Amino acid sequence: MHDLARRVIEGDLRAAARAMRLVDDRARGHVELLKELWKRPARAFVVGVTGTPGAGKSTLVDKLVSSWRKDDAKVGVVAVDPTSPFTGGSILGDRIRMQRHFLDEKVFIRSIATRGAMGGLSRSAGDVVRVMDAWGCDVILVETVGVGQDELEVTKVAHTTVVVVTPGGGDEIQANKAGILEVADVFAVNKADREGADAQVRHLEGMIALGNEIARGLAAKPAGHSHASHASHVAHAGFLSGQAGAQADGGWTPPILKTVAAKNEGIAELRAAVEQHRQWITSELGLARQRRHANERLIALFRDILTEAAMTELAPDMATAAQAVEAGASDPYTACEGLLDKFRAR
Amino acid sequence: MHDLARRVIEGDLRAAARAMRLVDDRARGHVELLKELWKRPARAFVVGVTGTPGAGKSTLVDKLVSSWRKDDAKVGVVAVDPTSPFTGGSILGDRIRMQRHFLDEKVFIRSIATRGAMGGLSRSAGDVVRVMDAWGCDVILVETVGVGQDELEVTKVAHTTVVVVTPGGGDEIQANKAGILEVADVFAVNKADREGADAQVRHLEGMIALGNEIARGLAAKPAGHSHASHASHVAHAGFLSGQAGAQADGGWTPPILKTVAAKNEGIAELRAAVEQHRQWITSELGLARQRRHANERLIALFRDILTEAAMTELAPDMATAAQAVEAGASDPYTACEGLLDKFRAR
Repeated sequence: MHDLARRVIEGDLRAAARAMRLVDDRARGHVELLKELWKRPARAFVVGVTGTPGAGKSTLVDKLVSSWRKDDAKVGVVAVDPTSPFTGGSILGDRIRMQRHFLDEKVFIRSIATRGAMGGLSRSAGDVVRVMDAWGCDVILVETVGVGQDELEVTKVAHTTVVVVTPGGGDEIQANKAGILEVADVFAVNKADREGADAQVRHLEGMIALGNEIARGLAAKPAGHSHASHASHVAHAGFLSGQAGAQADGGWTPPILKTVAAKNEGIAELRAAVEQHRQWITSELGLARQRRHANERLIALFRDILTEAAMTELAPDMATAAQAVEAGASDPYTACEGLLDKFRAR
Repeated sequence: MHDLARRVIEGDLRAAARAMRLVDDRARGHVELLKELWKRPARAFVVGVTGTPGAGKSTLVDKLVSSWRKDDAKVGVVAVDPTSPFTGGSILGDRIRMQRHFLDEKVFIRSIATRGAMGGLSRSAGDVVRVMDAWGCDVILVETVGVGQDELEVTKVAHTTVVVVTPGGGDEIQANKAGILEVADVFAVNKADREGADAQVRHLEGMIALGNEIARGLAAKPAGHSHASHASHVAHAGFLSGQAGAQADGGWTPPILKTVAAKNEGIAELRAAVEQHRQWITSELGLARQRRHANERLIALFRDILTEAAMTELAPDMATAAQAVEAGASDPYTACEGLLDKFRAR
């Protein structure tokens, strides 16, 4: 196993592929491998790309890969796919668009599947990122589908997260505004040649302004639309409008970029915004946020390891407990207390 | 505490309100209360109502409440709200539409908030349902917002789940087809007076047909649209088209109902479909599904209780572990193994 870690660190492509399979399958020895790889300090810049389904994330990721490849950066792509047999097909289609990078020895693309419990996703993504980092990637893009709480959790493995939306597509954003504001470092309004792009930009601006107000404890003001008048500035000037990017108070306000990934429009500006944020995370507040995310990921990993151990060891006891509850001989709370005692006594 | 349980079971409204606050806050003594209430066999019919944001779920729930109230049923409504300070307002607005039921002593409406970890939601919803059941509800409606995996988990507390969609609104459904098909017993295409209602019905039919094929292991056929020709039958004939409802093989195919809740259209038919499913769950396959859901909920409850215990007891150790990882003195896997050992040793 030490040998595999060594070969990954030496930049061996096949060793990296084997290591990724190992950690994604959680095969025997994968924890030892990861411990070895953790001994080497992380050095890759990790960029999360998430957003509503159909927003064109894969195309955007594809163009960002090309952009970094032009600077000869070694690039990793972690694509987090739902297990759904129904969406499998269309996502495979997205992957095919990435194929031109498959022949590039300095690009590593790896899909990871969601497992029943979504918690495990962050762990798998983090582990694959760790392997890619050790293999020598300069930049790693982590692409997730959807903006639910679980998908957003995954982006906490990233230094910088791009949330991709489209003109018109708004339901999902509405449903998880708070979660999105927490993780979004840069917004990309993709397919911006469609009608409604400016309205979407204004909508996001209002959302960001509201988020800032609440963060500053001024939430008493009425919600939402008071900032719409600022819209025209940011929409065309990109992230250096004076209202987005690093702030005088040390905070970061997410810039909103308009892109048309399919036509390669706005990609350079998007990458510039992402690189700008990369500078910010070395600031005091940026480092504090990195630390908070690292802590949250450690807690999530521990929950995952804890429940995995309990579920494995207690499988027969769980079945017995379920039967007792069904028969009316016990209730769920009494049954769970019994299971907890059993787990501790082992 | 025994006294509170007794008063709830006697149908005391104030006791029920106090019990619900107690279980939702997980206040001291709430586990003992729930154990008491579990001694009484459950008898309420629990109906989950979930769907995309803006689909008109609250209005639909409101009309269903009125429908059951006409038969003098005692009705409970559990509304699962996201914690988001941003959506809080609009959901409150939905609640206001329900106000006419607030004066009705035989309707109990209770909102529960999501907590950071979504897992806890199912538990809270299940606990509040248990109190309402003990209080004497004949029917309990559990309304959740969104069709992500977590929201769908909550509906497993229900005997019958209605998934509400609208003409046009489709992104979210696409993103979690498998999850939706697993929980949906009845589909309501609400706002069906809008353009695109029939297209949405056909889309759902295709999705259900594909789901049935996969369930029957015939997934080799090309996906999706081959069943579109059946559309016109189901769309207008409601759930008794011969293609939906209880099947010859004992299974259940979700009927698709068109409703315009704001105009009270299609509500009687929707309720009839829900009652039809209520019959089905007493069948062999129906009972097997109930058992599977009960087992899944027991596992979820145990995970929740286990991690809650670990997080409470290990809070100082977690902080120390995080610092060690940050300083490079440990790695997350080694740190988690140490935490697990500590938890067991207590």
